[in-house]
Amino acid sequence: MTTAVDQPQPGPTNSLADVAGVRVGHHTAIGDGWLSGTTVVLLGQDGAVAGVDVRGGGPATRETDLLDPTAAVERVHALVLTGGSAFGLAAADGVMARLEARGVGVQVVQAPGPDGVAPPPVTVPIVPTAALFDVGRGGVASNRPDAGFGAAAHDAAAAAGVGQPVASGNVGAGTGAVAGGLRGGLGTASVRLADGTTIAALVVCNAAGSTVDPVTGELAGARVGLAGEFDHLRPPVPAELEAHLAEIAGEASLNTALAVIATDATLSKAHAAKLAGVGQDGLARAIRPAHSMIDGDTVFAVATGTGSGPDFVRLQAILAAGADTISRATAHALLAATSTSTPAGSWHSYRDRFPSAVGGSPTTATQTQESAT
Amino acid sequence: MTTAVDQPQPGPTNSLADVAGVRVGHHTAIGDGWLSGTTVVLLGQDGAVAGVDVRGGGPATRETDLLDPTAAVERVHALVLTGGSAFGLAAADGVMARLEARGVGVQVVQAPGPDGVAPPPVTVPIVPTAALFDVGRGGVASNRPDAGFGAAAHDAAAAAGVGQPVASGNVGAGTGAVAGGLRGGLGTASVRLADGTTIAALVVCNAAGSTVDPVTGELAGARVGLAGEFDHLRPPVPAELEAHLAEIAGEASLNTALAVIATDATLSKAHAAKLAGVGQDGLARAIRPAHSMIDGDTVFAVATGTGSGPDFVRLQAILAAGADTISRATAHALLAATSTSTPAGSWHSYRDRFPSAVGGSPTTATQTQESAT
Repeated sequence: MTTAVDQPQPGPTNSLADVAGVRVGHHTAIGDGWLSGTTVVLLGQDGAVAGVDVRGGGPATRETDLLDPTAAVERVHALVLTGGSAFGLAAADGVMARLEARGVGVQVVQAPGPDGVAPPPVTVPIVPTAALFDVGRGGVASNRPDAGFGAAAHDAAAAAGVGQPVASGNVGAGTGAVAGGLRGGLGTASVRLADGTTIAALVVCNAAGSTVDPVTGELAGARVGLAGEFDHLRPPVPAELEAHLAEIAGEASLNTALAVIATDATLSKAHAAKLAGVGQDGLARAIRPAHSMIDGDTVFAVATGTGSGPDFVRLQAILAAGADTISRATAHALLAATSTSTPAGSWHSYRDRFPSAVGGSPTTATQTQESAT
Repeated sequence: MTTAVDQPQPGPTNSLADVAGVRVGHHTAIGDGWLSGTTVVLLGQDGAVAGVDVRGGGPATRETDLLDPTAAVERVHALVLTGGSAFGLAAADGVMARLEARGVGVQVVQAPGPDGVAPPPVTVPIVPTAALFDVGRGGVASNRPDAGFGAAAHDAAAAAGVGQPVASGNVGAGTGAVAGGLRGGLGTASVRLADGTTIAALVVCNAAGSTVDPVTGELAGARVGLAGEFDHLRPPVPAELEAHLAEIAGEASLNTALAVIATDATLSKAHAAKLAGVGQDGLARAIRPAHSMIDGDTVFAVATGTGSGPDFVRLQAILAAGADTISRATAHALLAATSTSTPAGSWHSYRDRFPSAVGGSPTTATQTQESAT
């Protein structure tokens, strides 16, 4: 038996911001035909070692090839998750412009030629980006995140105070999210291991599959919650589950779960890619089916540490914690989402569809995150 | 012995435009601190099956993950090659906007929800993009292709007449190219196999490695020329080679060769990826070293055919022809380049550095291409 003191605990905000040096900002557009947004994760002046795993059949990505472990660039300066399908990849243009203006990026100095003249030096920010499909959910299909969304989300992240909780629910890239016929959203969670290592995740759950156990009506991601984290949840009454299953019959929400895992451990680029890959297991446990041909499921992993890397046992623990933190963040995303009606449709939140499951006692953390929006 | 009639011949323009339905457009910015540009390859209303192979250590790419053979999207609508390093990926925004306005893209129709309301349909153009590093070569590091460059290159491609030769040299994505201390550029070539299949390539040669054989001074890519294609070339006199080698000693040009192979054969998505991969061999034969940590060498392959796929023997021939066509296009890029001086440096063309190699008789094709610029 483990004692309570041995059990892993969440970090102070149970969010991605619990990894020192990682800041999150959202830009959210709701109303007037809009239901989309962009989330930027800033990784500091020197960036962080990063990896990616793309496992969905319909990805929309940018600057992922340089994350191959054999490629040269070791550190990335920001990550962008955005609505808008492939159009939304333009959000990265605005983030790159902001970072360049602040001198954040790879410094490229070109040698002088035979004439002694050299091109001017240039700063190239490395900003891997992934987009999800939420186009038209606000009613106007041409309303999609652009460079301005990226710049605004960057500015929000740059202004975030240390220890400030990350807003969750229908904010940023989670603004237009739908998952298995319910309202999806953005969720986050963290864990502090016994050795002091922090692993945190941010998930935008916008999935063809369902986050709800079709037998019990419970949120699948909550099964791997930390002690006390989801104790306020209980199986819903059968009538609510039956109504939900009838409502979503034949539905296939479009599409794509996006996630970021961050840790203050020191990882090689190859191990960051491995962390991203195992992180997909966290999506698999929280969303079923996952990684379908109409999902572009993409997981980034970033490691901010600058010391020596973990030994084999500790690496194993980090990988497992990364996956579980993604599952927990997915459950938080569904719990933080709010029911929404637009000219293009109506989506129930888990809370509104399963009131008997969430009772009258939402977690304090979720309330804080919602009010922070 | 094969007779002359058995030997493969180039298509009518010896360019990428010899594959029916493929159109190429450039936007070129030279002067006032500029030396960069963007090239767009349009693939028609229905697009073409595509694959990619990223083998350089410093890639800058967008929408390449969806080209994985296991991913859902089968056909892409345009390809973008651009200067501007990762900043230049913004060119794709402009191409996507133009294609969407013309209704070219994947048509996404979302099912109505329980309330009978559905989000509006949306057209998502699929535009894989790769960028090369030419930043600052015109003298001003902030002068980089943006969405407007993509839109302008799209418009040029859309206006290209059938059978119009593709302009080569220092145009489009080849505007700012440098290769192994010489002026690089954009080149193109095609071949028509005995069975009527056309394979064509477009290469932007901007490489850390050299395109010049260090022993003979010959262009390595010209070794695989078709009968008569490079007959006007001869080994340069030793003094020219010595001067060249002295001039580039210690130099390492930044960086990245980009290529597109197109064929009118019918290929699966997996075989298109294979064609792109073997195409990298064509870069390897024409540029040495290639695929370094400071090159982002990326090859796209597109197949426009809609019939039955090739048998094993014919597929082998297509793969080999793809690689050779890339080598030939690389040699044409160097031959079409022009010496250039800007506030940021001076670069000799192969023609000006090795006048004894090119003699007084450039190919008619090259002259046509230059005058078309």
